[in-house]
Amino acid sequence: MKASNINKYTPFQPIALKDREWPDRKLTHAPIWCSVDLRDGNQSLPVPMNINQKVTLFKALVAIGFKDIEVGFPSASDTEFNFLRTLVEDDLIPDDVRIQVLVQAREPLIRRTFEALDGVKNAIVHLYNSTSRLQRKVTFGNASKEAIKAIAVDGTLLIKSLLDEVPNTNITLQYSPESFSDTEEDYAVEVCEAVIDSWQPTPENKIILNLPSTVEWNMPNTYADQIEWFCRQIKNRDSVIVSLHTHNDRGTGVAATELGLLAGADRVEGTLFGNGERTGNLDLVTLALNMNSHGIQTGLDFSNVDSIRKVYEKNTGMNVHKRHPYAGELVFTAFSGSHQDAIKKGMDLRGEDAINWEVPYLTIDPIDIGRSYEAIIRINSQSGKGGVAYILKREFDYDLPKKMHPEVGMHINGLADKYGRELNFKEIEAEFQKEFVNRKDIIELIKYEIQELTETEVQSIVTLKHNGTEMKLDGRGNGPINSVVYAMQQQGWKDFNVEQYRSHSVGHSSASVSVSYVQLSMKDNPAIKVWGCGEHTSIRRSGVNALISAYNRAQILMKK
Amino acid sequence: MKASNINKYTPFQPIALKDREWPDRKLTHAPIWCSVDLRDGNQSLPVPMNINQKVTLFKALVAIGFKDIEVGFPSASDTEFNFLRTLVEDDLIPDDVRIQVLVQAREPLIRRTFEALDGVKNAIVHLYNSTSRLQRKVTFGNASKEAIKAIAVDGTLLIKSLLDEVPNTNITLQYSPESFSDTEEDYAVEVCEAVIDSWQPTPENKIILNLPSTVEWNMPNTYADQIEWFCRQIKNRDSVIVSLHTHNDRGTGVAATELGLLAGADRVEGTLFGNGERTGNLDLVTLALNMNSHGIQTGLDFSNVDSIRKVYEKNTGMNVHKRHPYAGELVFTAFSGSHQDAIKKGMDLRGEDAINWEVPYLTIDPIDIGRSYEAIIRINSQSGKGGVAYILKREFDYDLPKKMHPEVGMHINGLADKYGRELNFKEIEAEFQKEFVNRKDIIELIKYEIQELTETEVQSIVTLKHNGTEMKLDGRGNGPINSVVYAMQQQGWKDFNVEQYRSHSVGHSSASVSVSYVQLSMKDNPAIKVWGCGEHTSIRRSGVNALISAYNRAQILMKK
Repeated sequence: MKASNINKYTPFQPIALKDREWPDRKLTHAPIWCSVDLRDGNQSLPVPMNINQKVTLFKALVAIGFKDIEVGFPSASDTEFNFLRTLVEDDLIPDDVRIQVLVQAREPLIRRTFEALDGVKNAIVHLYNSTSRLQRKVTFGNASKEAIKAIAVDGTLLIKSLLDEVPNTNITLQYSPESFSDTEEDYAVEVCEAVIDSWQPTPENKIILNLPSTVEWNMPNTYADQIEWFCRQIKNRDSVIVSLHTHNDRGTGVAATELGLLAGADRVEGTLFGNGERTGNLDLVTLALNMNSHGIQTGLDFSNVDSIRKVYEKNTGMNVHKRHPYAGELVFTAFSGSHQDAIKKGMDLRGEDAINWEVPYLTIDPIDIGRSYEAIIRINSQSGKGGVAYILKREFDYDLPKKMHPEVGMHINGLADKYGRELNFKEIEAEFQKEFVNRKDIIELIKYEIQELTETEVQSIVTLKHNGTEMKLDGRGNGPINSVVYAMQQQGWKDFNVEQYRSHSVGHSSASVSVSYVQLSMKDNPAIKVWGCGEHTSIRRSGVNALISAYNRAQILMKK
Repeated sequence: MKASNINKYTPFQPIALKDREWPDRKLTHAPIWCSVDLRDGNQSLPVPMNINQKVTLFKALVAIGFKDIEVGFPSASDTEFNFLRTLVEDDLIPDDVRIQVLVQAREPLIRRTFEALDGVKNAIVHLYNSTSRLQRKVTFGNASKEAIKAIAVDGTLLIKSLLDEVPNTNITLQYSPESFSDTEEDYAVEVCEAVIDSWQPTPENKIILNLPSTVEWNMPNTYADQIEWFCRQIKNRDSVIVSLHTHNDRGTGVAATELGLLAGADRVEGTLFGNGERTGNLDLVTLALNMNSHGIQTGLDFSNVDSIRKVYEKNTGMNVHKRHPYAGELVFTAFSGSHQDAIKKGMDLRGEDAINWEVPYLTIDPIDIGRSYEAIIRINSQSGKGGVAYILKREFDYDLPKKMHPEVGMHINGLADKYGRELNFKEIEAEFQKEFVNRKDIIELIKYEIQELTETEVQSIVTLKHNGTEMKLDGRGNGPINSVVYAMQQQGWKDFNVEQYRSHSVGHSSASVSVSYVQLSMKDNPAIKVWGCGEHTSIRRSGVNALISAYNRAQILMKK
């Protein structure tokens, strides 16, 4: 924004609540959840859902565990009316689910709404009118505070007077002073108390007072102050369910709801993945999984967030961003080397029976929301040694010695750098095989026999091709590698020392295979160290293969 | 998440800071801004940027107004090294921009970093090591607190000892206790104070202490408590710039930074649109525009957010979500009728010289960030009467009488409902024309003449086709409409009364056109009221056209 345009925006004034208590509290339990996907979410879509799509989403919401579901504005259009009738007539509303319907304070609309509710067991009738100074001035043409309050009271009395029309439905009243967060705090309480006086809720039949941040302009801590003040002031607090309804215009909608819960609210309204007007509503998935990550039970089942995402995307036509908390494609991915190392260590430390989740860079176990470890680590030129080793181990069972990680990592990263892109697992394995395993560039092993001479001595007989020429060597030592090294030295190939050797078996398929790793150093420059890898069904031959691989690699590297 | 899996997550413990002051403060000025797009942002991309892409983004960051720009990890790879050299050699670094480079505490890496900085006037060398309990345990194999502190101190001393290598570069040290938000507060201060003791900053040459929420697991208010506590405890506060670096794993990264600024921090690190590891970093665009919306100057120019978005998307390969605050495609759109009505009223009230921004549902004027009103209101079956009228006025200069809004709105919404999708402006205009303007279904006006008989009486001579048969009528009255009504009644077409009439001129092109609106009611059922519209270069004939349009519509509606 140009500096000269900024003067037209009003400085923000927090409310003066010096003795606030919410910052000292912590969240210990979940709120009452209300999904407004089918109303606030739907009305914000370029292509609103048709009835089939709405029914599909409704079923998904029920399966997740929502008990309060706002289904629309039945008196506003035939589509909205018919959707609710479909839910009733197809018997899709479980007994423990309350259907919430939005309506304005006009008799024909309320009558029409009640028609739509025929056969619903439990319903919330949601009455609203806007109360903020700005809305009173602009939308209602400088209407007085009394006139705006009268809209709320008249609507409440009208609904109350028509309750006899729906004797078989338990009706709960929800009243929203829309644009609450921009309404003078004392006036919001005044309007809500007038509604309470008209409705006469009791602790057994509570009223829901829903306090929207219809347009988020306040800091989230100020919304919390407003909620705490409201909760303290409102009369008959034990007959009131205080409900939050935040939007995300400042990108702080989740925070505003969380702090509002600390401040004393009982219930939240929101949508899956935050779909809703403009920047969206509170994201119920994020809030619920945030609570899970702090060990709080929520009653909502997001154990398969991918399938919920698919239902959501298919029916709303919206997409979930790659970096969306918990559900985004990239959020369980680490490209950076140091992150990959730490994640690998955390995973390694974690046994089958580990209780507490303690893995760096992952706030939750992706498996708990139906996502896999597959995507945690991907490899590009930014990745560290640990990432490549992790992939080779997890995907292909190569358990590289720790000191081999840098050489392999550097090699694979160089390839990613060269390609200028991420490498997939298969490419990583193929490149590892090509560069490190069973090399035959200079010396090719044709045949290998070994005889145990004593308990501590073996004889190796090696048939090989050296630059294309076949020859047979033999040598003795305390093991296969040692004896082959001896044979090679006899042949004059003696510019190296064996530094390290390790092997393990791999159950790739039914037949187990042995994998060995050998590191050589160069006699005339011990700082130069080179790894090779061998694979064979025989552990002895896999070791010799590793030796010869390392030797071949060393000779080629020395020539460069 | 399944209930049984939630037990493995640790309950959250806020810190006990009873006398916190940040909730009583308000933001009054912008922080020092640091973009980490080219480092944290880049390392999180599936396809990291190449040098050309990085240069393009660097230039965009400079143009926005960033003075601290982290450009990478020059000692980590040739790509990173060469990028910084390109910036230097192509003279792309303005004198007032500080280049920030990340480096670990190892001598060859620091030497290599300093090589990369050769020729840079002002640089921030950013040293980091992880300090949290979890990282000490998992990543550093149960390293002691002393050992972890020693990494930070040794790195600081190493950088200090090598400063002579870069005599022509002003070096500022930035130290990050990575995973600060999960580190014991007193230990974080202890490590940072050891770094201060080693570096010896002064009020003239401050050290930057950057306090990352590397992985967001804390509530945002707790991060603020941690920052306030840190700011109070840290020694030599006047020689320290406290910097925030939040991520978004819980979807509260913006809130955490905002509350951290209330808590006393001086500087923030983040990225455009929040690109970064996993769920991303702090979104600098949102934070800066949040401040603008509260009247705070930021020194950053987001007056053309669309073009910045295009540069960002093209170079990073990431996209900005439709609901992303300020920049998303849908965030200045209202589909809901009540929102549209309120926006229309707010816009109407706003004169050319209006000072304060007061439009319901829009926290800022889209024009101030280079976006237009075009997208504010779009029409679908959920839209109200106000939205359609607003589009017809803004896009096509039809200033419909207020009482005409419901009939036109209902008709257009019905079409959107039928199509099951949004209508574009042209479709709305075409449908309005087809349904309401210059109708000729039953009566078609062929020729219209008028004579002024006296100052208060005119005579109309009307040539028309009635169901295909041409005829000529005449009638007298006090104006064109009145006299034509009289002529029609003489012909027996008298089942209606004229209820309302209004006209205005429209400067569509060089020639001005007159538009008229007429409402009729049916004599045998006055509750049925029907609007028609007429257009003509003559105001008189446009009125007659409106009358005949309304008559034709009424006859057709009565037949249905």
